[in-house]
Order: sequence, then C-alpha cells, then structure tokens
Amino acid sequence: MIKGYTLPRTPKGKSSLVPSPPWHYVGNVLAVEYTADHEKVAAFLPEGLTLASNQCAIYFIEWQYTNDLEEVYLDPVCSQYRETIVLLSASYNDTPVSYCPFIWVDQDKALMRGLIQGWPKQMGETWMTRSYDVDSKASPLLGKGGRFGAALSVGGRRLAETKITLLEESNSLPSPAFASAVNVRYFPELIKDKYDKPSVHQLVQLKSRDVRISSIWKGEASMEIFHHPHTELPDLKPTSVIAGYRFSVALTVDDLIHLYNLKQEIFIE
Amino acid sequence: MIKGYTLPRTPKGKSSLVPSPPWHYVGNVLAVEYTADHEKVAAFLPEGLTLASNQCAIYFIEWQYTNDLEEVYLDPVCSQYRETIVLLSASYNDTPVSYCPFIWVDQDKALMRGLIQGWPKQMGETWMTRSYDVDSKASPLLGKGGRFGAALSVGGRRLAETKITLLEESNSLPSPAFASAVNVRYFPELIKDKYDKPSVHQLVQLKSRDVRISSIWKGEASMEIFHHPHTELPDLKPTSVIAGYRFSVALTVDDLIHLYNLKQEIFIE
Amino acid sequence: MIKGYTLPRTPKGKSSLVPSPPWHYVGNVLAVEYTADHEKVAAFLPEGLTLASNQCAIYFIEWQYTNDLEEVYLDPVCSQYRETIVLLSASYNDTPVSYCPFIWVDQDKALMRGLIQGWPKQMGETWMTRSYDVDSKASPLLGKGGRFGAALSVGGRRLAETKITLLEESNSLPSPAFASAVNVRYFPELIKDKYDKPSVHQLVQLKSRDVRISSIWKGEASMEIFHHPHTELPDLKPTSVIAGYRFSVALTVDDLIHLYNLKQEIFIE
Amino acid sequence: MIKGYTLPRTPKGKSSLVPSPPWHYVGNVLAVEYTADHEKVAAFLPEGLTLASNQCAIYFIEWQYTNDLEEVYLDPVCSQYRETIVLLSASYNDTPVSYCPFIWVDQDKALMRGLIQGWPKQMGETWMTRSYDVDSKASPLLGKGGRFGAALSVGGRRLAETKITLLEESNSLPSPAFASAVNVRYFPELIKDKYDKPSVHQLVQLKSRDVRISSIWKGEASMEIFHHPHTELPDLKPTSVIAGYRFSVALTVDDLIHLYNLKQEIFIE
Repeated sequence: MIKGYTLPRTPKGKSSLVPSPPWHYVGNVLAVEYTADHEKVAAFLPEGLTLASNQCAIYFIEWQYTNDLEEVYLDPVCSQYRETIVLLSASYNDTPVSYCPFIWVDQDKALMRGLIQGWPKQMGETWMTRSYDVDSKASPLLGKGGRFGAALSVGGRRLAETKITLLEESNSLPSPAFASAVNVRYFPELIKDKYDKPSVHQLVQLKSRDVRISSIWKGEASMEIFHHPHTELPDLKPTSVIAGYRFSVALTVDDLIHLYNLKQEIFIE
Repeated sequence: MIKGYTLPRTPKGKSSLVPSPPWHYVGNVLAVEYTADHEKVAAFLPEGLTLASNQCAIYFIEWQYTNDLEEVYLDPVCSQYRETIVLLSASYNDTPVSYCPFIWVDQDKALMRGLIQGWPKQMGETWMTRSYDVDSKASPLLGKGGRFGAALSVGGRRLAETKITLLEESNSLPSPAFASAVNVRYFPELIKDKYDKPSVHQLVQLKSRDVRISSIWKGEASMEIFHHPHTELPDLKPTSVIAGYRFSVALTVDDLIHLYNLKQEIFIE
Repeated sequence: MIKGYTLPRTPKGKSSLVPSPPWHYVGNVLAVEYTADHEKVAAFLPEGLTLASNQCAIYFIEWQYTNDLEEVYLDPVCSQYRETIVLLSASYNDTPVSYCPFIWVDQDKALMRGLIQGWPKQMGETWMTRSYDVDSKASPLLGKGGRFGAALSVGGRRLAETKITLLEESNSLPSPAFASAVNVRYFPELIKDKYDKPSVHQLVQLKSRDVRISSIWKGEASMEIFHHPHTELPDLKPTSVIAGYRFSVALTVDDLIHLYNLKQEIFIE
Repeated sequence: MIKGYTLPRTPKGKSSLVPSPPWHYVGNVLAVEYTADHEKVAAFLPEGLTLASNQCAIYFIEWQYTNDLEEVYLDPVCSQYRETIVLLSASYNDTPVSYCPFIWVDQDKALMRGLIQGWPKQMGETWMTRSYDVDSKASPLLGKGGRFGAALSVGGRRLAETKITLLEESNSLPSPAFASAVNVRYFPELIKDKYDKPSVHQLVQLKSRDVRISSIWKGEASMEIFHHPHTELPDLKPTSVIAGYRFSVALTVDDLIHLYNLKQEIFIE
C-alpha cells in the first residue's frame, strides 16, 4: 500500500513532492498596477468570467513556505521560491474576481502546489530588490524615496521588468489581488482522439485563511514586457502604469472552492 | 475563447507549456540493472501490480525533443533536458511490466509531459559522461573499455551515482525497460476533507511508436544510492549490481492506454 | 584604446565584469562559531600566519551590492548573491587576524571581486532561512526562540549545514570575523616549468569602511560538514559548536593592505 | 605548508579549483563566420594588435575535460561545461592571430582555467543542438541538410543566437580560429590610487598540442546579437554572415607563450 498526497506515492508516504495541506506562506511583494488593451485582455478570460476592467497587476514575490509536519524553512532549499504572477480584473456572476493568465515559479514543489490550485505555473527566474535592516548605499529604504526593481526571465530571455519608487503608505492592496483569484484547474488527457477532453477542467476559486499584511508602501512605477517567442504575455503589456507597491504578506491555504465544471470539450489550437 | 493543450491556455493557443502530441524524443542513455531488497521493492507497487522480481533498473538520459509544429531543437533551451528514471519489475494481469516509483527531470516542459503520462516527475540534476567523435583523453571510447559515469542530485544533495565500463555489444536492452511502463496518472484534490479523493487516479500504460535503438553496449557497473531526507529512494538501493548499459533511443509518444480507474479513496499518510 | 577595471576590457569600458571600487555591500548573516582539530586547522595557514586558536567560524550571507555608477540593486540579478565563508583564528606579527581557507559564492561578479581581494572563491549554492516582517508559521521570529537554518552545496553535493536557535542579543560579533581577514592574493603562471612560480603571490589584509552592524542575535547552534571528494573542508569539521549568530552588516570596500610578497616558488602537490 | 596550483591552497593540495596542467579537452562546436563594422571591431583590440580584417567568428561549444590525475569525466558535473567564444581577426607583428573580446562559460573551473590563459571569461548559459546516433525527428542529421541552433544568455537575457544549415564537408576550420588566440592576461590591483596599475598585464599567445579535428561540416547560417545593458558585444553584431560550421575538436593545454608585458598603467573609464 502506497501513501502520499501527491506523486511520488510510496510505502511510508514521505516522498510526495508536496504533503497535504495546510500550506503556510510568507512573502515580500513588489507589485505594479497597470492598464492593458481592453480587447486583448478580455480575450484571455475563460468561460464563466467576463472582463470587469482593463486594469491588470503583476506581482513579484520572494516566498518562504512551511507545513504542519516540520519547520520546512530550516532547510530553505525546500522552502524558498520566487514567483511572478499576472492578474486580470474579471467578474464571476457579477462579483469582481481576479484571474491569472500567467505565473512563473522557480521550484518544483511550488509548481505542484500551484497546479493543484489551478495556477497555470511554469518555471521562470524572478529577481527582486531587497531592503535590509542596516543603512547602506546597497539597500533602498523601505519608505519614502526607496527604489526597488524586479525582473522575470523565462528560458534565458528577459520577459518583464519593473522599477518602483515608494512615495507613501497606502491603506489598500493593489488590484486585482491574488488572494481570492478564480483559476482553471486543469489536467490534460493523452488518449488519442481525446486530447480535447481534459480529465480535469474546473472553474475554482482560491481560499486562504490567516492572511496578514504588513504596512503597504505605494508609489510610482515603470514596467516593460518584452517579446518572447513562447508566450502571449506581450499581448498584456502596459498601455499605462498606475502605481507600484511593496508589502509583505502571510497566508495559509488548505481549501479550494469548486465553482463549476467547465466544458468537457476544449479547443486546442 | 482560450485554447491550448495544457495551461496556460490563451487566445492564440501559443502559450501552453506543452503542445498536443505527437512528441518526438531522442536520447543518449546510461543504465544500470541491479537487484534490491525483495520486500522493500514490493512495497512500492500500486494497487493492480504485483512484484515480478527484485530486479530494478536506473536510467540516466540526455534527451532532445521536438514536435510537429516546429523544429524545437533549433532553440535547444526549449528542447533538451536530462532525466533519471528508476524502474521496478512488476506484473499486471500476469503480464510483465515495469513500474516507475521515482523520476527526475530538469525542465518544466518535460515535467508536464511526464505528469500527463503518469510519470511521478520532480526536478533534479542529472549529469552523464559523453562520448565524442574525436579521440581524446577527455572522452571515453564508445566501445570495449570505455568508462562512463552518471549522477543525480536533488535539492543540492547527491542522491545516486554510477560508473560503467563497456565490455561487449548486447542484443537486449536493460530490464525493466521504460518503453511500456505502467504508471499511476494522478491529480490531487484540494477541497477540504477530500484530500484523500484524488481528481484523477488511474492505472495507465505508456504507448510509444517509431522506436529506434542504436547498437547497445553492455558492461560492468557500480552504483550507489545515498541517504536523502526527502525521498525513500534509498529503500531501493542495490543489493547487487548486474550490468551497465549505454545506447541511444528515439521514440514518439501520442497515445496512452487506460488500464483502469484506481480506488477513489487513498491513504495520504 | 580599451578600458576597464577588469576583463573584458572594451572601447567604452562598460563591459568589465566588475567596475572599479568603491563596492558597497549589505547582507543578512547567519554564523556559527565552533572549534576544530587544532593540528588540522594549523596546517591550513599560509606562510606568515600562525594559529591563534582552534576557534573557527562559518558565515552564510545573502548579499546585495551596488557601486557609485548606478543603483545596481535595481537590476537585482546583477546585484544579489549568496556566500558561505569559513574563517580561522590566526596571528600575523602577534596581531590576531582571521584567515579564510574556503569561500563559495553563486555569481561571477562576486567571484571576481573576491579573487581581486585574495578570497579563494569558488561557485557554490548557499541557502538560508529568512525572517519576514509579518507574523507567520513560515517565518521564524527575529528574536528569542527564532530558529534559522543554512546550507551549502557544491557541485550538487551538500557540504555543510547548520541550525541556529536565537536566545539573546549580543554585544559582540562572532569570532573570527571577516571584516579584516588576511588573504593570499594569488594568480597562477601557465608557462611550462613555471607552474610553481605564481605571477601574483601576496599576503594582504582586507580593508573596509562605513561598516554598520544591526542588532546581533546569539544562540545555540548545530553544525555538520559532510564528506566531499573535491575539498578538504571536512578536515575543518566541528569538534564542538560554540554559538550561532544572526545579524545584518553593511560595508564598503575600496582599498587593500599589502602586507608582503610571499615566496616566489610554491608547492603544487 | 599549503599546496596547490590555484586557490584554495590547502595542506594536501587536493582542494584547488583547478589542478596544474596538462588539461585535456574535447568538444562539439557550432561556429559562425561573419563580418562586423570595421571601425568598431578595430576599437576592441588591445595594444600590440592591429586589425587584420573585419571578419569575426562566434563559437558555441559543449566541452568535456579531464586531467592526468583522474578520469574527471566520470564525475561529469566536474568535467562538462558549455562556452560561447567571440573572436576577431588581428595581426601581431605582421602575423595573423585571433583575439577574444568576449567569452562565457557555465562552470567555475572552466572560468579559472580561462583567466589563467587570459581568456576574459564570465558566466553565461550556452545551449546548442545535438545530433544523435539514431534516426529521429528530434535530431538533425550530422550531414547535408542538418539544421542546428545555438544561443547564449547572460544574466537571464538572451544575448546571441544562430541557426545553421549544413551543406557540405569543408577542408578548413572557421576563421578566426581559437587555437592560437592572443589574449591579455590580466589581474587587477585593489590598493587605493593604484586601480590603474594592474598586477598582471601581459600579451600572451595560447599554445595547444595534440589537436584533433573531426570532419568539418559547413553551410549557411543566420545570426543575431541582441541589446544587453552590461556588454558591448552588440557593437560586434553582424553586418553580414559568411558561413556556419559544425565539427568536434580535442586539444591539450599545458603551456602559454608570453609575448610581452603591456603598459603598467591603464585606462579604467
């Protein structure tokens, strides 16, 4: 009898890439709110969602993770990862929700936890400026005038970059936000003539608890999205940049809301 | 309307991590046949398989991939990856099959194509000696006396290594072989209280076509599997090493055989 | 006419791997003081240094760097790196100094700045627990009871790891310290029959300015150094562990003290 | 007494990043001959060299290395590396020589062996198509009509890429060639007010022996060099592409020719 929440499932159940939830996360975030071409953004939404506005957001995050079995962060190669998330402003049954067309991480455990939640995760390299607790020319101030940068590379090609100058504290998080995003949970079929009938195809909504947010700094930002041969992200490039943000966030994930099953038959190309 | 065989599904369908099959592969292989503890090996088998023998095999492979849409190997960062596969000798309905308890790759596209086929893929670093077409002290002969090494690291820890000395050509591939392995296709559930009811839990058998094998060199081998805190692979360590192999293989995947749906309720820990 | 402080030297002087100093650094540090075998430690010292005590230290650091030409940290892939430093307690002319037998970084720019200062830098992967500014199960407290881990891998093999529990604030840094280390600046010769007559072979002492230290947390620690086929670091393994530390440091480097030229002829093996 | 050819120098002399020569290499090469802007190319040459022509070459190579102490290729993580070399056509005392303005590798051992020979090495990611010994859609033919690609990324930004179609066997290697390149061996000074007086500043010529070349395939090529904020390589971009090549090479390095000492005082910026 083999055990485990994910593959590889083994006799002791100690080999799963990811153990069962709860999964606890804490991260430092740089984010940019921006607008993109209305029609192009709308085209990225799945069945069941309509476009609420052309306001988008991109998040760059340095995460640390643990679970209830052990203090995973004591072996940080198993705990830390960096992520870039793109979010769109959608409506589901007249309720505003966010939707994620693209997301990149740099560790397999994070990729798997993401797929289970419907995040369309791929591997990519995220880099972001850190602020340190001692005064240094090498560290931006975490406060008025502090300047931060972030960048994403995929397959050795730079795909996105931003520079943010903090100006003031803010009472609100960037929007669209990632906490309650609506995702498409999806697992393909490989049996011939059934490629268009995925084994799993569900509209789901993320659920997180014990969310904690640090003070939120807001300011000016610039952002660029570059041409890349293997992604349509450039269709979501900024038409104008609204604001940049820097904050920290903690949250726990151990549940998911099933909205409904999407069409059994999809278009592949 | 969004399109694509895998996430991310997008308006043009050009962003999927993996396009729909056929998937064409070619690889150089170093492999070791060995025996492990009978009882321990048996414990790794899923429902539906029984142990045929305690003979195991480990494969180290440098792959190159393409599909029918483009010559992917012209942008090799998207095409090449390295893999380590562990296989056990099982029976399914009295037919000998192989079963894969562990497999590691170093690219996300390979990981996703694997999950779709039921391979329990994780990320890991595989290294293997190459033979070159010019005479050099830096290159082993691809022939009698040639010595090759291979190693796997996971999370910055060396997990397995082998050294092989080629002795003679062989008419047969190592056994168990990877071509028609039986896998567990699996996608977890995240809704609370349903963690033990996976969304996909199927016994499947791989199907490949257009298989071509180079001449096969066989010889002596040593192999070690090291302690690692996050995998039970050490329970499959060699009790004796049978032989080492070196060959090249090409194959195409565009189908999968569904054997039967596994239990709806699983043990997680 | 080509320009630049390091190779590559080019027409505009904008291609050097490293620009001329000053170099500004800020880092978060986890450190362990420990004792090793007295005789073995003594054998690592170069000509001109004698052993002061068998107390050693190992530092794990997440650095961010900038210079005076630009805010390098806005393109963090060019600015951030992780480092593991081993230090021994030595005397130079009856003055206590530290000496570095081994150091690993993960970026070429850091490697080059190190070689120029005599640090014997190689590439390796350092991982260390972070503390975040929001309360989370995934983040240790930066204070009494907070637990931190760090690890070093070289060539896919784990070489060292530590776990530290913070207990109290401390007025003193770990010893030996890295700020004023004595290094051997060294550049080999490749002309045949002159391999033992290095082009540069100097005893030098580091010089840093504008040093700033955060509050220093001290506590209990465990540490292990593992066997590795290509380094003698295991000869410096702990006989006892004294204490663990966590602090942040900023400093600027733009000078070096030349102590004296070492022997023109060396032993290679 | 500590020993070793390079840092780290240790009691047993077994820790040096690089052991003393001979160093044996074997590699598969994709190369492109092209012309660049005459004036711009000329500006990259150091004192002592004049421009012979505006013909340049770029080489992408998958190397395997060993020495006389052990079969290093049996632990391939210590032996294999990938490299991109740019070469210019120069004259030294009326003799044609090649000169390397830029070179990137992906392993520290290769970087150090390079610096010792005057190669201006930095870290970068090189990818190149492989040809396999079995027929496959995923492998180009190593012969007429075979198509190969190669690419270089530095700091997560693609810097150069090529596509080559083989047309015929050739009797001659691409030119300029790397075997007898003239390099500037260079080690900076860090003592304040002496940054412009490098410790080592020599014009040297590479020397290799036991060179073996496979059959050489030649054909058509395209090549692009992309903008990158931290390198002047784009000033050497193609004005026309002459030809592409694919071959294998083996060589041994254990000597270097010292031409003369360059100026004691340099321009930094």
